[in-house]
Amino acid sequence: MYKKDLKVRVRYSETDKMGVVYHGNFIPYFEIGRVELMRTIGLVYKDLEAEGILMPVVHLEIDYIHPAVYDEEIKIETWVEKVPSTKITFNHKVFNENGKLVCRAKIILAFINNEFKPIRASNKIIEALKTKGVN
Amino acid sequence: MYKKDLKVRVRYSETDKMGVVYHGNFIPYFEIGRVELMRTIGLVYKDLEAEGILMPVVHLEIDYIHPAVYDEEIKIETWVEKVPSTKITFNHKVFNENGKLVCRAKIILAFINNEFKPIRASNKIIEALKTKGVN
Amino acid sequence: MYKKDLKVRVRYSETDKMGVVYHGNFIPYFEIGRVELMRTIGLVYKDLEAEGILMPVVHLEIDYIHPAVYDEEIKIETWVEKVPSTKITFNHKVFNENGKLVCRAKIILAFINNEFKPIRASNKIIEALKTKGVN
Amino acid sequence: MYKKDLKVRVRYSETDKMGVVYHGNFIPYFEIGRVELMRTIGLVYKDLEAEGILMPVVHLEIDYIHPAVYDEEIKIETWVEKVPSTKITFNHKVFNENGKLVCRAKIILAFINNEFKPIRASNKIIEALKTKGVN
Repeated sequence: MYKKDLKVRVRYSETDKMGVVYHGNFIPYFEIGRVELMRTIGLVYKDLEAEGILMPVVHLEIDYIHPAVYDEEIKIETWVEKVPSTKITFNHKVFNENGKLVCRAKIILAFINNEFKPIRASNKIIEALKTKGVN
Repeated sequence: MYKKDLKVRVRYSETDKMGVVYHGNFIPYFEIGRVELMRTIGLVYKDLEAEGILMPVVHLEIDYIHPAVYDEEIKIETWVEKVPSTKITFNHKVFNENGKLVCRAKIILAFINNEFKPIRASNKIIEALKTKGVN
Repeated sequence: MYKKDLKVRVRYSETDKMGVVYHGNFIPYFEIGRVELMRTIGLVYKDLEAEGILMPVVHLEIDYIHPAVYDEEIKIETWVEKVPSTKITFNHKVFNENGKLVCRAKIILAFINNEFKPIRASNKIIEALKTKGVN
Repeated sequence: MYKKDLKVRVRYSETDKMGVVYHGNFIPYFEIGRVELMRTIGLVYKDLEAEGILMPVVHLEIDYIHPAVYDEEIKIETWVEKVPSTKITFNHKVFNENGKLVCRAKIILAFINNEFKPIRASNKIIEALKTKGVN
């Protein structure tokens, strides 16, 4: 498994009238988590898109345990457990400033080409993960 | 089971650079689906909140099958299969203008009070669903 | 001048922890206002884009007078006062359910082509507005 | 005048089908700009709210000059030119990675109390700005 942590500060625009982060607004946090994990192994999502490799989300599941509040710096943990074939799974845990688990998520993305047809993960992606110990 | 359909037109702000609805932007559609289902049985979520009943999302899972595009009127199907106790489950299917399945989702909300403590669904909610044949 | 009114119900996702609509979330309402005004005169923005005419916002100004709250059906008034040349100006007023003025806005969009180069408004757009009495 | 710069990386969720940042999604960037400027002079907006001082946006105007694209680190410049009385004005310029001006904005916020009644800026806020040379 290969894991990457990062911190994001909650924006006012991400809260709702319950006074906490709107449940849908965690999804961009997970997006940042996986984009930055990929960047650390030399995979820049923007460049993949420019090469004709798109990675739409095909499945996501989130368990919400504790609310996140405005202005806190939450920690987003992101990890990959398995080398991808036609799909890749990212796992996430989000913690608040006190170390409390806020939510956990599993997000599956497919690999498709410019015509939205399924393709296999490129060797570049597979090798990049293998060098980090993912099998 | 009790089911309610409604239509929502995709906003430009809800698309992303892939040219389709951003996967996170389906979540407000599901919110509209369950709020309007509840309204049809006399449960106005705004009023529940005013009475001190909050319903945060505690679990969600979404399968994305086909992209939704700008300006189409998508159909959101929402249904409840079981009378709630401390949680309620809403099911969703989204279809595009051609009748193609866009995504399906299962969303679980808890009942909590103003102090964020778990409570049971009120009789009002349970009876409202029972009159619609939900058991 | 040509004017079009429509109603939009405030979504939970559009509120913030102040308990009211987040100021940035009025912008999609204005987008709906101008898209629907255009639709009533036979101009479907999606089709314009398909023909290679893009209309990015180049200027916007908003005065916020009164908060809008969750679940209310706000009225969005949108009007055009002048036939466009290289730019078009849309004016807006938003009212709450009690008829109170929530905000007013002026939004200017440019006409550009697929290469993001400025172009003049097409005759189709100009004629459509002229038939509605805009000069 | 007191000025603070910071960088924000454009998220995928912030783009639209035109392939660039949706015009409404600059508003959270400005929010980050002014919140972080305030933090550097000891004013934590979250704490102000806890003390019963709210600062809703009452006016904003934005000129969009050049598109911002996915994954670039844009620079947000924020500055205050005048000590506030019942309102405070923040000015912004956003630049892309190549130093090109993306947009500029002027945003006015009012000071109100918990009952949404206008109040004057507290001495704490005025003194904090004065120590930075704002008059």
